[in-house]
Amino acid sequence: MTHPKSLPSEPVGELFKAAFRAHPAGVSIVTAMGPEGAVGLTASSVASVAVDPPTLAFSVTGGRSASHIAAAQTIVVHLIGADHLDLARTFADPGAPRFTDGMEWELLPTGEPLLTEAAWALRCEIIHRAPLGGSVLLAARVLEIRATPSGSAPLIYHNREFHTLLEGIPALG
Amino acid sequence: MTHPKSLPSEPVGELFKAAFRAHPAGVSIVTAMGPEGAVGLTASSVASVAVDPPTLAFSVTGGRSASHIAAAQTIVVHLIGADHLDLARTFADPGAPRFTDGMEWELLPTGEPLLTEAAWALRCEIIHRAPLGGSVLLAARVLEIRATPSGSAPLIYHNREFHTLLEGIPALG
Repeated sequence: MTHPKSLPSEPVGELFKAAFRAHPAGVSIVTAMGPEGAVGLTASSVASVAVDPPTLAFSVTGGRSASHIAAAQTIVVHLIGADHLDLARTFADPGAPRFTDGMEWELLPTGEPLLTEAAWALRCEIIHRAPLGGSVLLAARVLEIRATPSGSAPLIYHNREFHTLLEGIPALG
Repeated sequence: MTHPKSLPSEPVGELFKAAFRAHPAGVSIVTAMGPEGAVGLTASSVASVAVDPPTLAFSVTGGRSASHIAAAQTIVVHLIGADHLDLARTFADPGAPRFTDGMEWELLPTGEPLLTEAAWALRCEIIHRAPLGGSVLLAARVLEIRATPSGSAPLIYHNREFHTLLEGIPALG
């Protein structure tokens, strides 16, 4: 151990944004039925929390879709591969039309919108909501899972761009 | 929209694990000073929640390091690039020696262990704890950030292996 050293006192907000821009993340689309119809958004914060019972967490920030998802009792979390980059882009753009006739989706008998092309669709009940600085951190219990394996490469969000991960290039030790 | 269709009723637990194995994630190491000394663990669930004030979230599951981190008032979240894969592996293995003389680390004046090689070190105060099925979902306010840009490729955890992301291979639209 060397001598103690302070962290520098640079503006934390800008450094925070730069740190997470450089932090890669998987890509999900979260949908719900809101009071005005189906809503959805692309999220890069979905993570597994517990396996028994299956529980995941993510956060949403601002906007109509975010507030309707945060208020929903049940949601569908779609984990997205590189073959559905178009869906990830559509739901990342608040101005893009969603749930159009040209989009592969349907309503589940339980009422939530399902994007039928997604490799994984997890129907969840929101069990915890924590408002934090203009965002809401949500935890959700997974009720049902639809798997549609496509063999697609994974989709990764990094430095404000979508990337694919080339299989067979593990990091060297 | 096509006709409503049920999600299949396969065992949710196994599908849940398979879904998140296939969901790529960035890699972090979270450290804290516990009652018996410095503790740390590798986490693939760290995500930005809010920018103002800067807030992040992650979850920890089981074990001594996890319980000491969940109970700590302050922690350091290190975002790890591919050049520090060795650190990620060390803190992912509960049996591996940590905070040894050979490891580049020091105590901050505020008492938390800092891994000095990490590209980003975010000193945080835990502001929210939600126990969920044997895990704890934590939210933390970022107090200070130390940036040590290394130009390293990002490190990604996917299918139980560490991978690098090759820059310049954005996903095609």
